[in-house]
Amino acid sequence: MSDLALCADLAGEVRLFDIDVRAAEANVAVGNALFSHPDARTSFRVRAVRSAQEALEGSDFVVLSIEPGSITMRYADLEIPRRYGILQPVGDTTGPGGILRALRAVPIYEDYAHQIMTACPRAWVINYTNPMTICTASLYAAEPGIKAFGCCHEVFGTQERLADWVGRWFKTEPPDRRFLRLDITGVNHFTFATAASWDGHDLFPRIRDMIADPAFFADRSETAARRRAEEKWFENDGLIACDFFARFGVLGAAGDRHLAEFVPWYLTSEENLHRWGVTRTPYEWRVARLSRLSRREPGAPLTPSGEEGVQQMRALLGDDSLVANVNLPNRGQAPDLPPGAVVETYARFERDEIRPLLSRPLPPLLASIVSHVAKVQQTTLEAARLGDREMAFQALIADPLVRISTDDARRMFAEMLDHAREALPRFR
Amino acid sequence: MSDLALCADLAGEVRLFDIDVRAAEANVAVGNALFSHPDARTSFRVRAVRSAQEALEGSDFVVLSIEPGSITMRYADLEIPRRYGILQPVGDTTGPGGILRALRAVPIYEDYAHQIMTACPRAWVINYTNPMTICTASLYAAEPGIKAFGCCHEVFGTQERLADWVGRWFKTEPPDRRFLRLDITGVNHFTFATAASWDGHDLFPRIRDMIADPAFFADRSETAARRRAEEKWFENDGLIACDFFARFGVLGAAGDRHLAEFVPWYLTSEENLHRWGVTRTPYEWRVARLSRLSRREPGAPLTPSGEEGVQQMRALLGDDSLVANVNLPNRGQAPDLPPGAVVETYARFERDEIRPLLSRPLPPLLASIVSHVAKVQQTTLEAARLGDREMAFQALIADPLVRISTDDARRMFAEMLDHAREALPRFR
Amino acid sequence: MSDLALCADLAGEVRLFDIDVRAAEANVAVGNALFSHPDARTSFRVRAVRSAQEALEGSDFVVLSIEPGSITMRYADLEIPRRYGILQPVGDTTGPGGILRALRAVPIYEDYAHQIMTACPRAWVINYTNPMTICTASLYAAEPGIKAFGCCHEVFGTQERLADWVGRWFKTEPPDRRFLRLDITGVNHFTFATAASWDGHDLFPRIRDMIADPAFFADRSETAARRRAEEKWFENDGLIACDFFARFGVLGAAGDRHLAEFVPWYLTSEENLHRWGVTRTPYEWRVARLSRLSRREPGAPLTPSGEEGVQQMRALLGDDSLVANVNLPNRGQAPDLPPGAVVETYARFERDEIRPLLSRPLPPLLASIVSHVAKVQQTTLEAARLGDREMAFQALIADPLVRISTDDARRMFAEMLDHAREALPRFR
Amino acid sequence: MSDLALCADLAGEVRLFDIDVRAAEANVAVGNALFSHPDARTSFRVRAVRSAQEALEGSDFVVLSIEPGSITMRYADLEIPRRYGILQPVGDTTGPGGILRALRAVPIYEDYAHQIMTACPRAWVINYTNPMTICTASLYAAEPGIKAFGCCHEVFGTQERLADWVGRWFKTEPPDRRFLRLDITGVNHFTFATAASWDGHDLFPRIRDMIADPAFFADRSETAARRRAEEKWFENDGLIACDFFARFGVLGAAGDRHLAEFVPWYLTSEENLHRWGVTRTPYEWRVARLSRLSRREPGAPLTPSGEEGVQQMRALLGDDSLVANVNLPNRGQAPDLPPGAVVETYARFERDEIRPLLSRPLPPLLASIVSHVAKVQQTTLEAARLGDREMAFQALIADPLVRISTDDARRMFAEMLDHAREALPRFR
Repeated sequence: MSDLALCADLAGEVRLFDIDVRAAEANVAVGNALFSHPDARTSFRVRAVRSAQEALEGSDFVVLSIEPGSITMRYADLEIPRRYGILQPVGDTTGPGGILRALRAVPIYEDYAHQIMTACPRAWVINYTNPMTICTASLYAAEPGIKAFGCCHEVFGTQERLADWVGRWFKTEPPDRRFLRLDITGVNHFTFATAASWDGHDLFPRIRDMIADPAFFADRSETAARRRAEEKWFENDGLIACDFFARFGVLGAAGDRHLAEFVPWYLTSEENLHRWGVTRTPYEWRVARLSRLSRREPGAPLTPSGEEGVQQMRALLGDDSLVANVNLPNRGQAPDLPPGAVVETYARFERDEIRPLLSRPLPPLLASIVSHVAKVQQTTLEAARLGDREMAFQALIADPLVRISTDDARRMFAEMLDHAREALPRFR
Repeated sequence: MSDLALCADLAGEVRLFDIDVRAAEANVAVGNALFSHPDARTSFRVRAVRSAQEALEGSDFVVLSIEPGSITMRYADLEIPRRYGILQPVGDTTGPGGILRALRAVPIYEDYAHQIMTACPRAWVINYTNPMTICTASLYAAEPGIKAFGCCHEVFGTQERLADWVGRWFKTEPPDRRFLRLDITGVNHFTFATAASWDGHDLFPRIRDMIADPAFFADRSETAARRRAEEKWFENDGLIACDFFARFGVLGAAGDRHLAEFVPWYLTSEENLHRWGVTRTPYEWRVARLSRLSRREPGAPLTPSGEEGVQQMRALLGDDSLVANVNLPNRGQAPDLPPGAVVETYARFERDEIRPLLSRPLPPLLASIVSHVAKVQQTTLEAARLGDREMAFQALIADPLVRISTDDARRMFAEMLDHAREALPRFR
Repeated sequence: MSDLALCADLAGEVRLFDIDVRAAEANVAVGNALFSHPDARTSFRVRAVRSAQEALEGSDFVVLSIEPGSITMRYADLEIPRRYGILQPVGDTTGPGGILRALRAVPIYEDYAHQIMTACPRAWVINYTNPMTICTASLYAAEPGIKAFGCCHEVFGTQERLADWVGRWFKTEPPDRRFLRLDITGVNHFTFATAASWDGHDLFPRIRDMIADPAFFADRSETAARRRAEEKWFENDGLIACDFFARFGVLGAAGDRHLAEFVPWYLTSEENLHRWGVTRTPYEWRVARLSRLSRREPGAPLTPSGEEGVQQMRALLGDDSLVANVNLPNRGQAPDLPPGAVVETYARFERDEIRPLLSRPLPPLLASIVSHVAKVQQTTLEAARLGDREMAFQALIADPLVRISTDDARRMFAEMLDHAREALPRFR
Repeated sequence: MSDLALCADLAGEVRLFDIDVRAAEANVAVGNALFSHPDARTSFRVRAVRSAQEALEGSDFVVLSIEPGSITMRYADLEIPRRYGILQPVGDTTGPGGILRALRAVPIYEDYAHQIMTACPRAWVINYTNPMTICTASLYAAEPGIKAFGCCHEVFGTQERLADWVGRWFKTEPPDRRFLRLDITGVNHFTFATAASWDGHDLFPRIRDMIADPAFFADRSETAARRRAEEKWFENDGLIACDFFARFGVLGAAGDRHLAEFVPWYLTSEENLHRWGVTRTPYEWRVARLSRLSRREPGAPLTPSGEEGVQQMRALLGDDSLVANVNLPNRGQAPDLPPGAVVETYARFERDEIRPLLSRPLPPLLASIVSHVAKVQQTTLEAARLGDREMAFQALIADPLVRISTDDARRMFAEMLDHAREALPRFR
């Protein structure tokens, strides 16, 4: 809403729907504060509505961002697997946590897909909920004609990190992240930059030099300890992103806490994770944070959010074009990843159209690793759609993080399903 | 050179090489006139050089535009097939004429590819010679690391025709062609618009309505007769482009004289061709025109050429980005056409990089027809590379225009090879 | 039924159903004569039934062999196209005749598919009706779980021709056709031997030598004239099969009258066809022959038919295994032909199972030609299923034999549909 | 050699070459004993030769079976990974042990491939060495024209186990394994039966019933303890094969000790492995066994080995045909596994030809797991060919058994390479 507040050339109404009415109303207050801010340049209005139907009717854009099931169900996602030795710094995308969260989210998303195709079939649907890939895919599975895409800012973080390095390498001010030109491919949060340049300089040789220094990959356990003490769970140094570069020649293009969850090498123990400077966000902290309602400091300045949502809308309305990373079903834009799977690549946003740019291929072995992840996601979605417990367990056991015995896995999964059963009507 | 003359932000030297020194010198005179024109804003200079080597050394861009073999060899391309009942309005792209021309061009192109990779391996190579597809492919076959692409303005013509129709449909001034937004796919000169819009209006329903009127496809023999009388060989009404639309639901995106050459339906007789308002350019007219050296009317105004070459260069130099149609090896941008074949789609020109946009698929039966054309082209290229006469004949007989007996085809091909033998060292 | 009569180890009942009851009864008479022949070793019985339902109930095998629509509709298949210059020696597989015949056959086949899956879902269904590919495909399109395959003896003819050549090359008695070991691939009647051996001798070098003699491909117009005079429409010398070998290095594995219909090179005129020693079966002769009811000369000896149907049944019943050519949906047995299309390759018949052998690839350009034929067939089937006239016309115009103007093609197709309208309920 | 001794219709000479001359001579003694046995029906002779060259010259068949590097190098394969927590019951196919063994074997195999193509290019080459897939693939990588295949009897074991179950289910004598009809697909030792029948009975519903009994998967730690005590390392109960069936609906078609090595679920600890009744063969036992020279009890009866090698040879010589499981490059016989990878499926052995039967697809998620294994193998082969240590490490870290930190993996790999350095000339 900050970005809308700063945008002079769009106009309209923001309708907020939340199953928790108080939350919607709190957000209306935030919105009103933003839209009436002295620096605001908008004529947008904001109001809370009592039903999804009311929110959707006649909309041009639908933004989906939900918590599937109660926040305390993150216990099932995170803490139960941890007891079985499976560590997940985030646990909302992949691994046991991501799978259970998907089982909860898919029925909700299917329902939204049907409502959208009834109330506003020509609207563009922007998904921000994790698991990004499965949520976006579930919209298309329920309604193939839907115009949906998924947005994630992890790639921005990679650009910002590269901007810092550019500042150091070229002894200059770090450029704006948008001047860092990448090619990316993969599935959300397990995305890779297959090329990177700035001002005509190929940055890959620079990265190669940087990481050749043995000090680069030195143990960061102390950094991790400090981060834990300061509750800076999201900070990381891109060491894992660079370890992928060392191994495969392409740069991880998501935060280390995400990248670590897709392979078994970084999460064998807390110590191992800390060695890369990465920390696990505690379940309790999550509950505490997400329980707080939105507020806005009075008098705070009005600043751009750094997200691209409003620019994407402007482009889709025909006011501009924009090249941005986006999650969409693979019609061929990632030729080495499974067709139909939701993949993350760059695309050109144009008037009422998103045209993917063809991405470069990954190195074959990494393409195989990413493709397997995509297959696990497709199986998870199918299991969620059918309410097929055996198929869901098949996905779980095939997930790269699940390296426990099948007996343990079966017990763990039963506990997880049981804990979240309120939000799993198809699995009772 | 007109466009360079009008471009203030590039600078450099144009080196003209021609195996006919007089032609190069005549073009230097044209260039000097353009660059010193009162309206010119350039600091470019132009000079003729005596060797390809001299032209290439240190170049940033190489523009290839040649006549492979003497102009009188078009007799073999056009007139010999005509005696066997094979009519070709153009005959430089496909059909017997396109194949023979390819056999002459490929050795020359292979030689240029090697010279370029020695003299200026980082240069971008822009091909304008027909057969566009095979010439561009031959550069990559000879030097896989080359940075080459092929340019063609036929798609512009489709945009212009659509602009006229927009003017009529919306009772407005015809917009600039660049505001007609298309998606295209195919092989050069056999390209199709799979989507078209203007100002947010989907134009396909309008085309459907327009051609539903029986008058639309009425006999244009009289128009064709007038065009022949006035020597307006290049004029056409897009009737064949629209007949493809009627048949397959996508719009032919090249001139009718090109489109007609890729299927057997329009060239069964002169009368049939004329019925669509299309004429065959006579061989004699071609010889006469191409024998004239370039000249420029003194005092003529300096106007943009309508081509995009200079804008493409600016984008590749990093001054801008540009989305343009381009001929490139298929790495996946046309997922329903053969991998590796040179295809024509849109791409984004960026600093030192061309990133294809993923194109929509063709209707399956048309995709099969286009794919077969691509296979014939790949076989022709291979035959030209190896000097394999049987393989070249295989390509010829598989070409959609060749619907004569194999005995006749063999005799015809022998005559053609014999007539052009001076330019076919590998086939003697 | 001759083969059943000679088979001691199978027993059961043959139920004959025909929409023309007299035909079924005439065939019962033939069957009774065969089963009671002094040399017969069977306990099979035969009877006519009044409904398909009665024939199917509880069957182990279903044999489909029909004439779709009245025999006089072959006029529409053959004579109407001939007036437009399209010659078809057979006209029941491909070309305008094959397409119109498919449009008539598909609804009947869909109906049978549904009846079979109700009455005898575990039965094996053997199709002998042309167009073989489309009829067999239509069973799977209507009932994906059906166990159907198509049988054709054209490959046997190729083996017999090779056996004759072996006799000549090795100065021996021509071996039994079954000792000629081939690999084949393609679509029915447009099938190719990609390898051939006898007794460990690779026969391809022998063919190469044989056809290198210029006399081999000499004009056979006189032979064709004699064949016409003697009404020997089915005789041919394999010259076209060998012309494919000369062109592509693989041997046509169907009769020349079939092979000629899939490419435009042999049917440009009657003279051209006769030059290869091939004749067109006249429409009138067909009507006369097919109007005759079956009879059997009393006292005629009981001889094997040369077909493999009974051996296939024995293998499917588990009494033996058999490697035979067969038409089945492409699950990968022909990796260079479209997935899902019905293709002809070798397969191993085992107990209740047919396992395709992986076939060698065709030369790429021929694979492209065959693939296009398969796409035309898939489009024809889809059009027949939907009753979509425009889609049927799309298939017609894309057929390699149709090299007339689109105006003429449209008129021709309208006439054909009109003539056969009784049998085309979906196209009225 | 027992089978040759019992085979009356083949004749010739067996030439034994071993880099350890005494071993070859000991085997000559064994061979002489077999060939002169009273029950022998052969005219074969056997002799030791001093060079591979002498063995190969003019051979019709080449049998390769080697230990790559000294037997004590198995220490590096097995014991070093064990210290890092990676347990391998076999360790010669996949996992760190299989990879290191491949690095040793590939140069030897490349050398043999070249020698074979010089000395006996038309010979059939039968590989028995593990890692089967990579060794067989390395022959094709070095000499694409070689006629090589890999043989493994693990599938026989699956047939025998099924025969036992058939005996129990149908209250009959267990049938000969050859009457168990399977379809199989996968990579060697990670192969799956996608169908199984006996005498027309589909066995999959029987398996489903059998394993539905909770007792079936009960803890077998005591059995494992007994097996360890009795040194019965190769015994197992097929529990893991059936656990795959429970998970994916297809039956593991190799011994449990092999199957367990391709996924992380069974080797998390010794206890976990024992729970399935499976034991790890100790390194010391291997050294002791393989150090013994071959001998043969005087007076022992002459019995068939149960292997199919001699039958395969007879079929390839044209005396018979045979359907057998075989390891060959994937030309399409396993359409859901990577093209070109060596896969195990059934094939028909005919005169001088092996024609793969098309295999049924695996369930998608399992196909993804197997495909990834194939990619790791392809990367290992490439690394071995190039002597590229980083690429070899890339393969190691991507192996499903390697679930340790990258730091540990790097140390472990350095130790392994160092221990086996004598046999790794390209990695020094």
